[in-house]
Amino acid sequence: MRLRKLKNASQVLHSRLDIFVPEPMLNKGKWSKVFANNNPIHLEIGMGKGKFIIEHAQKHPDINYIGLEIEQSVIAKAVRKIENNIPNLYLINYDANFIKEVFDENEIDKIFLNFSDPWPKNRHAKRRLTEKTFLDNYASILKDQGTIEFKTDNRKLFEFSLLEFVARKWDIVNMSLNLHEDGEDIITTEYEDKFINAGQIIYFIEVKNGKNETL
Amino acid sequence: MRLRKLKNASQVLHSRLDIFVPEPMLNKGKWSKVFANNNPIHLEIGMGKGKFIIEHAQKHPDINYIGLEIEQSVIAKAVRKIENNIPNLYLINYDANFIKEVFDENEIDKIFLNFSDPWPKNRHAKRRLTEKTFLDNYASILKDQGTIEFKTDNRKLFEFSLLEFVARKWDIVNMSLNLHEDGEDIITTEYEDKFINAGQIIYFIEVKNGKNETL
Repeated sequence: MRLRKLKNASQVLHSRLDIFVPEPMLNKGKWSKVFANNNPIHLEIGMGKGKFIIEHAQKHPDINYIGLEIEQSVIAKAVRKIENNIPNLYLINYDANFIKEVFDENEIDKIFLNFSDPWPKNRHAKRRLTEKTFLDNYASILKDQGTIEFKTDNRKLFEFSLLEFVARKWDIVNMSLNLHEDGEDIITTEYEDKFINAGQIIYFIEVKNGKNETL
Repeated sequence: MRLRKLKNASQVLHSRLDIFVPEPMLNKGKWSKVFANNNPIHLEIGMGKGKFIIEHAQKHPDINYIGLEIEQSVIAKAVRKIENNIPNLYLINYDANFIKEVFDENEIDKIFLNFSDPWPKNRHAKRRLTEKTFLDNYASILKDQGTIEFKTDNRKLFEFSLLEFVARKWDIVNMSLNLHEDGEDIITTEYEDKFINAGQIIYFIEVKNGKNETL
């Protein structure tokens, strides 16, 4: 989806250093200090306009949230939405390919991947956020029993992702091939609300890091 | 689904010993001799009225097929459908719980499970044909790299089965969360035709026996 670009995105972001972290690599290994507590840290990769992570942060003050988004213009829209400071939420404008520059090993408790770009062409498979190289990076920054929660409306991306998770020996903790038929009390993204209204199926899987098991 | 019982099922079956094997346990370890060749053997567990396996056998004369069905009355209907002898097909009336009484280790190349009873209640989970105990029996009678192809319209059974396969370390070879959108040239069962006509999704997975890999 193309979004109208915000001309003053950079200004918007830098005017809100209470929520936006301009140089997140400086916090690598120190995120607990940044939050000033030892609560678990949950990371959404590709947070878009932020509805999901903002609602999570407001609902769970005992969990620290970081939202990562590659598009400056998009993250600026999320920032504009946040009127009051949310002490357990920071947003960063970064490329998920280089996530290990921003987070140390074992620094993250949970990763959310919501409605990632499906990159439907085979030659773009390596760009999918559940491709093996990404999964291995997630395994590195996640704690031992850390988990990934992945939601998508895209069947092909879901099938691909499931096979990648299984191939990399992640354990399946939960799965639904029709999340909103099964679930209750689900915090949705902006996209998700549109898909639900259009009667589309949302696929869901939660997997557990098996990096320290015998591979 | 309840089927009208055939009163003379036993007579129908015993009148067709060219296709029906009344005491299959006598053939344990000797099925290649029964077929009088060394072609691969494919087994459908719960073959119902037989459309799927009969069409397969006719299409692939180089593969030997065995159809297993617990309901005598149902298997008799399949037998009545077969006018001419099909040399690469035998049908047996047996309980899948005792499959190791009928097949030796490594005797089977592929197992088909089509639209198995979902047994939706948790207390009946052990009756599902993809429950761990069944899977371990299949692993035993299947050759090393033998596969299972599993189709169902039942989402909950599919989710359950996928988790069971993964938990028992079967490798996923193929998967589709909407088989008839992806597939071409698919041989269907009687049930399947009804589901497709009703616009229902058919789920599919093919898994490979990992019994001789490091567990």
